Amino acid sequence: MTSRSYDRGPDGLRPTRIDPGFVPSATGSALITQGETRVICTASVDESVPRWMAGRGTGWVTAEYGMLPASTGDRKQRDVTKGRPDGRTVEIQRLIGRSLRGVVDFAALGERTVWLDCDVLTADGGTRCASITGAYVALDLACRRLVAEGKLERSPLTTTVAAVSCGVVDGTPVLDLDYREDSTAEVDANVVMTGDGGLVEVQATAERTPLSRAHLDDLLALAAIGIEALRSEQEQAVARAA
Amino acid sequence: MTSRSYDRGPDGLRPTRIDPGFVPSATGSALITQGETRVICTASVDESVPRWMAGRGTGWVTAEYGMLPASTGDRKQRDVTKGRPDGRTVEIQRLIGRSLRGVVDFAALGERTVWLDCDVLTADGGTRCASITGAYVALDLACRRLVAEGKLERSPLTTTVAAVSCGVVDGTPVLDLDYREDSTAEVDANVVMTGDGGLVEVQATAERTPLSRAHLDDLLALAAIGIEALRSEQEQAVARAA
Amino acid sequence: MTSRSYDRGPDGLRPTRIDPGFVPSATGSALITQGETRVICTASVDESVPRWMAGRGTGWVTAEYGMLPASTGDRKQRDVTKGRPDGRTVEIQRLIGRSLRGVVDFAALGERTVWLDCDVLTADGGTRCASITGAYVALDLACRRLVAEGKLERSPLTTTVAAVSCGVVDGTPVLDLDYREDSTAEVDANVVMTGDGGLVEVQATAERTPLSRAHLDDLLALAAIGIEALRSEQEQAVARAA
Amino acid sequence: MTSRSYDRGPDGLRPTRIDPGFVPSATGSALITQGETRVICTASVDESVPRWMAGRGTGWVTAEYGMLPASTGDRKQRDVTKGRPDGRTVEIQRLIGRSLRGVVDFAALGERTVWLDCDVLTADGGTRCASITGAYVALDLACRRLVAEGKLERSPLTTTVAAVSCGVVDGTPVLDLDYREDSTAEVDANVVMTGDGGLVEVQATAERTPLSRAHLDDLLALAAIGIEALRSEQEQAVARAA
Amino acid sequence: MTSRSYDRGPDGLRPTRIDPGFVPSATGSALITQGETRVICTASVDESVPRWMAGRGTGWVTAEYGMLPASTGDRKQRDVTKGRPDGRTVEIQRLIGRSLRGVVDFAALGERTVWLDCDVLTADGGTRCASITGAYVALDLACRRLVAEGKLERSPLTTTVAAVSCGVVDGTPVLDLDYREDSTAEVDANVVMTGDGGLVEVQATAERTPLSRAHLDDLLALAAIGIEALRSEQEQAVARAA
Amino acid sequence: MTSRSYDRGPDGLRPTRIDPGFVPSATGSALITQGETRVICTASVDESVPRWMAGRGTGWVTAEYGMLPASTGDRKQRDVTKGRPDGRTVEIQRLIGRSLRGVVDFAALGERTVWLDCDVLTADGGTRCASITGAYVALDLACRRLVAEGKLERSPLTTTVAAVSCGVVDGTPVLDLDYREDSTAEVDANVVMTGDGGLVEVQATAERTPLSRAHLDDLLALAAIGIEALRSEQEQAVARAA
Repeated sequence: MTSRSYDRGPDGLRPTRIDPGFVPSATGSALITQGETRVICTASVDESVPRWMAGRGTGWVTAEYGMLPASTGDRKQRDVTKGRPDGRTVEIQRLIGRSLRGVVDFAALGERTVWLDCDVLTADGGTRCASITGAYVALDLACRRLVAEGKLERSPLTTTVAAVSCGVVDGTPVLDLDYREDSTAEVDANVVMTGDGGLVEVQATAERTPLSRAHLDDLLALAAIGIEALRSEQEQAVARAA
Repeated sequence: MTSRSYDRGPDGLRPTRIDPGFVPSATGSALITQGETRVICTASVDESVPRWMAGRGTGWVTAEYGMLPASTGDRKQRDVTKGRPDGRTVEIQRLIGRSLRGVVDFAALGERTVWLDCDVLTADGGTRCASITGAYVALDLACRRLVAEGKLERSPLTTTVAAVSCGVVDGTPVLDLDYREDSTAEVDANVVMTGDGGLVEVQATAERTPLSRAHLDDLLALAAIGIEALRSEQEQAVARAA
Repeated sequence: MTSRSYDRGPDGLRPTRIDPGFVPSATGSALITQGETRVICTASVDESVPRWMAGRGTGWVTAEYGMLPASTGDRKQRDVTKGRPDGRTVEIQRLIGRSLRGVVDFAALGERTVWLDCDVLTADGGTRCASITGAYVALDLACRRLVAEGKLERSPLTTTVAAVSCGVVDGTPVLDLDYREDSTAEVDANVVMTGDGGLVEVQATAERTPLSRAHLDDLLALAAIGIEALRSEQEQAVARAA
Repeated sequence: MTSRSYDRGPDGLRPTRIDPGFVPSATGSALITQGETRVICTASVDESVPRWMAGRGTGWVTAEYGMLPASTGDRKQRDVTKGRPDGRTVEIQRLIGRSLRGVVDFAALGERTVWLDCDVLTADGGTRCASITGAYVALDLACRRLVAEGKLERSPLTTTVAAVSCGVVDGTPVLDLDYREDSTAEVDANVVMTGDGGLVEVQATAERTPLSRAHLDDLLALAAIGIEALRSEQEQAVARAA
Repeated sequence: MTSRSYDRGPDGLRPTRIDPGFVPSATGSALITQGETRVICTASVDESVPRWMAGRGTGWVTAEYGMLPASTGDRKQRDVTKGRPDGRTVEIQRLIGRSLRGVVDFAALGERTVWLDCDVLTADGGTRCASITGAYVALDLACRRLVAEGKLERSPLTTTVAAVSCGVVDGTPVLDLDYREDSTAEVDANVVMTGDGGLVEVQATAERTPLSRAHLDDLLALAAIGIEALRSEQEQAVARAA
Repeated sequence: MTSRSYDRGPDGLRPTRIDPGFVPSATGSALITQGETRVICTASVDESVPRWMAGRGTGWVTAEYGMLPASTGDRKQRDVTKGRPDGRTVEIQRLIGRSLRGVVDFAALGERTVWLDCDVLTADGGTRCASITGAYVALDLACRRLVAEGKLERSPLTTTVAAVSCGVVDGTPVLDLDYREDSTAEVDANVVMTGDGGLVEVQATAERTPLSRAHLDDLLALAAIGIEALRSEQEQAVARAA
C-alpha cells in the first residue's frame, strides 16, 4: 500500500472538524470538513407533512444531496441542467434519508417535516458519509431549537448516527478513503452506525474481485473505530453550539 | 414468527424456476419466477459503447429496471408519466448493473454494450434480487450466442452471480422475504454473491432498530444457502436452453 | 405478392391465441399471441375517476401502451429515458382508449376508472390491433370480477370489440400484416369493429400512392373476416377463464 | 338536425378563404379561414435533413401544430408549460406530416427539410383539416420559391392535397362540422384526399354508436364534395400569390 | 450612421399600427405592427387567482411570450421541443408581466387573473417592447368588456403603459431599433413608460463599451418621444374598437 | 424612513468582505459577505467553447446562479425538483453572464470557456449584485492563475466590474437594500458598473408608482458611491490572494 494522506495508518480518520451554525438562516446547520472533503449540512423544519401521512400525528425526515459545480476538479454540470438528479445523487440522498430516519422517533417529532440538505463544497471522497455525519449535527441542533422554542417537549432523537467509508486498497483494509484511494479500491463500503455501535446500514461493493467474509469483518471493525471518533466530533460540535 | 408462505422454514427459498428464451427477439432472455414474483430479463447487444469509453477495445454492461403497472396490487404509475424514473427504480437499476459488471471481463467482451432489461411482471418482494439472478441467465445466453455466431472467441463471463434477500422478521433471521414479510421486517438485506461464494454486494438496512453483528452474520449465512440453490437453477436454465 | 408467413392466403389471420389471467395481480389480464407478436394486456380498477368528472356517477376507461426494450430486433430505448412517450406511443394509446370506451356504458360502470395497460413483449407488426383485441379480454374479465365481488350489478360492456390490421401489399389487399409486409405496404389500415360488425374506428393511410375507394372496400371486407375470427378467440379465452 | 351555421345544407362547406404570404419571414405561408376557424400555416426550408437520412440525396417534410392560448374560448395552457406536447397535439401533427409527405417526391426535393408549422389563431372545429389544407398552400409556395431561386429544377409536389372533416350529427351525415356540431356528433371523420380524388388518409371514429358501412360511404361522398371546393380555394390562393 | 429603415431620423419610430380585436375568441386582443415586427396580443380572463393569493379579494395579471417558428428568418425551434422556455423567453415574459401589472389596481380587478399572451408573428427587432404596447391595448379592451358585462364597476387600469427600444448605434443614440441595428448596437435599452411620462422599467445593457451617463440621458429622452407616439396609437386603437 | 440595518445612512453599504480562495477545487473562487447575504462564487475553466463558436479563436464566459435550499428563511425548493430553473434564476444568471462578459476580451481569453457559478449561502437581499461583485474576483483570480500557469500571456480582463442595488424606500433613495427594505421599496434598481465608472447594465423597476427622472438620477449617483467602495473590496481580496 502506498502512503496515505495525512500520514495515516490503515485505521486512521482524516482530520475532521464540524462547525455548527454555518448557515444561520437554517433551523440547524453544520459545515463538516473531513480532509479535503467539505459538506454544508442544514436542517429546515416545515410545519407540515407529505399529504399521504397527514393526520397521523407523526413526522417525517427527508434528505437532498447536491454538489456545487466547482466541488470537483472538473466542473460538474448542475443536475437541473439535465432536468433531473443523476442516478448517483438519487442513490445518495435516499441513503442519507434512511440513515437519519433510523434515529428519529416520529411520534415525538409530531406532524412536521425536517428537510436535510447536504451540499458538497469540495469533494475528495467520502461525501455521502460526511453528509450523514454532518446532517446528524444539523438535525440535532434543529431539534434542540424546537425544544427551546417550546414546539417540542423533548428531542425526538433516539441516539446519534454517523457514517464512514472503508475499503480494501491494494489488498489492505483501510478506513476513510480519499478520492485517490477510492478510485483504485477493490472493495468500497459505507457503514452507518449509531453512537452505541448498532449497524443502521451496511453497503459493501466489490469493484473487481469478490469480497471475502474475512475482509468484510475487517471493514466493519475499522468502521466501528471511525464511527467512535466521529461521534466524539459530533458531541463537541453540538456542545460548541450551545 | 408467523408461518411462512410455501411452508418454508427460516432458510427456505420460495419455489424458483427460470425459463430461458422467454423473449425470442432478445439476444438472451429468461423469465424468472420466485414464488409470486416474476421478472422478464433480457440481454440486448449493441455493437458500440458509450462515447466516453470508445476506442479502448473494452465493452460495457448496463441495466434498466421497470415494473409493469399491474405488477403490484394497486396499479403503479409508469415512470414516464412523471418524466423520470423514481428514486427506487434508479437505485435498483444501478445495483443490477454493478452486480452483473462484477462478473464480466470487459476486454474479452470487446467494444460492445450489453443492455440488461428487467421488467417485473408480478411483484411479491425480492424483485431486485430476482432481477439479478434472472439477468445473469439472459446475459449468459447472450454471450453464448455471440460465441456461437463467431463474434466472440469465448464467453467474457468470469463466474456466475445471483442475489437473494434476507432479513430479520419478528426477531428471526429469514431467507427470501415475500412482500408481507418485507413490509414488517426489522432488517432488510440484499446479498449478491458469485457462484463460488464471493460477496459482490451487501446491502443491509435496519428499518427500526439497529442491526447487531451477530444478526448480520446470520443473514450472510442464510444468503449463502439461498445463492447456492439459485446457482443450481441458473445452471439448469442455461442447460435447458442449449 | 410473395408468399405470406404461416402459408396464409390474403384473407388469412396469423395463428392467434389469448391466454387469460396472465398477470394474476391485475383485476383482469390476458396475453395475446398473434404470430410472433405478443402483448401483455391488463385491466386495473381504480375506485375513483379523474377530478374533472367526479360527482357525475359515471366511470372512465383509459389506456397506456408500451414496448419492452427487447421487443423489437434492435433494442428500443425506454420512453422514460427521453422523459416523455414518443409520438407513436401517444397515438396508439389514444386509439386503444377510444376503441375500448366505445363498448362501455359509463353509467353502469359507476365512478371508477379502469386502466388498460398494453405492454408489447415481442413485436412483429399489428401490435396496436393486438393490444385492442387483448385489452378487451382483460377488461371483460375485470368487469366479471367486479360483478362477482358484488361491486357491479351487471357488466358495463355493451358488446365486444376487436381490431385487425389490413393493407395493400404489392397491389393486393391482405389481412393481418406482419412486420415485413407492413414495411413495404402501399396502404396500411387499422380497423376496429364490434362483435356484431359495427365500425368503431377506421384508420387508413396511403404510404406512397393514394388509395382508391375500391381498395378501401376490399380492406373493410378483409377486416370483417379477421374481426369475426378474433371475436371467437376472445370468447374462448373468456370462457377458459371462467 | 338543428340548423347549421352559415345556413348550410348537410353538404355545405363553411365560407373558406386562403390568404397567401401571411408570414413574410417564412419561405411559404398562408392564413386559412374556414368559418370561425383560422390557422396560420408556414413552410420553412432547412438545407439539411435529419441525421438518420443524410447522404441519400432525398429530403423530408415534417409538421408541427400548436394552438395560441386564446384560440379557444377558455384559455388553453401552452404545451411548454407542461413540458411536452399533449396527446392531441402529437396525434394531429403526425397526421399533418403524413398527409403532406403523401404528395412530395423526396428525390426531387433533394437533401433538405421542409418544416410545416400550423398555429391555430381561432378554433371552431376542423383545425387539423384546415391545417392540412393551408399547409399545402404554404408548401406549394415554398417549392415555387425554391424553383424561382434556382435551388430546385421543378416542384417536388406530385399533386395537391386537402382535408375536410365530416360526421354524423343527429343521424344525418354532414360536411365540415363546427365546434358545436363536433361535440355532439355520433361519428367524427377526417378525410385527406389528393386533388384528383385519391384517398391519402381516412380516420373515422364512432363516438357513441358504431358506424355502419352505409354511413361511411355517405361520409366519403361528402368529403369528396368538400375536397373539390377546397382544391379550388387552394388554386386561387396560389394564383393570387404569383 | 448608415441610413435607417423607413427613412427615419434618429428619433423616428417605425410605422406603427395597432389592430384591435384581431383574435375574436379572446376577451381582448390586438395585432401590433411596428415596421416588420408583428405581435399578436391577447388578454384572457380567468375568474380565479393563483392559490397562494386566493381569498384576499385582489386580482393578478401574468404574461406569456412566444415566437411562431417562422417568425425569424431561420426557423426557430418551439420551446416545447426542448421541454422548457428558453432563457430569453423567460426574461421577456417576466418583463411584460411586471410592466402591465404596474398600471393595474388589483383591488379594483377583484379575484380574477388576466393572462396576457404575446405571440410574435414576424420578428424584426423590438418584439418585447411591441408586446408590452400591444398587450396594453388587449388588456384595456378586456377590462372594458368586463365593465360592459357588469363584472367590473370601473376599469382597474390606473394609466396607460407602452414600451420602446432605443440604443447607441455607431455612436449615435437612436429610437426603435430594427434587427439589423440591434445586432450592431453598442448599447441596447428598453424603456417602459406610463402615458403620463413616468418610468415603469428601464433596462440598458452595454454590449461592448460601457454606457456614459450622457448617453443614458439621450436614450431616455428618445424613449419619451417614442412612448408619446405609441400612446397615441394605443388610444386610436381602443377608440376604433368601440 | 425607518432606521437602516448597521446604522447606515441612505448612501451606506452594508459591511462587505470578500474572502478569496474559498473553494480550493475551483480555478478561482471567493466568498462574498454583504451584511447577512453570502454568496459562494467560483470560476471554472473549460478548455473548449460551445460548438457554435468553435474555431474562431475566441473564448466565452457564462454564469449559473443557485440558492441553497436553506439560504432563505423558509426552505426554497431546489430548481431540479421542478426540472428546470425558475424564472427568477434564469433572469439572474443571464444578468451575471452579461455583466462579466462586458469586461472580458474574448480574443485574449482564447478558445476556452469560463463557468461562473454563484451559489447563495444566505440571502438577505441583493444576491444578484453580490454575485456579480464576487464573481468578478473569482474570474480575476482564475485569469491570474491561467497567466501564472503560462496558458495566457496576459489577463483578458479589460477593467473591473461590480454591482449594487439601490431603490426608493418610503420616498427616499437608498443604497444596498436588505430583504426587509427590498420588499417594501417603491423602486428597485440594480446597477452594474466598471471600476472606472462606466455603466454596464441598469435595471430599474417601479413596483407601485412610476419612477421620476429625478429619482433615477439619485439612484445612479448612489450606485456610483457603492460601486467605488466595492471596487476597493475587490482589489483588497485579489491582493490578499496573491
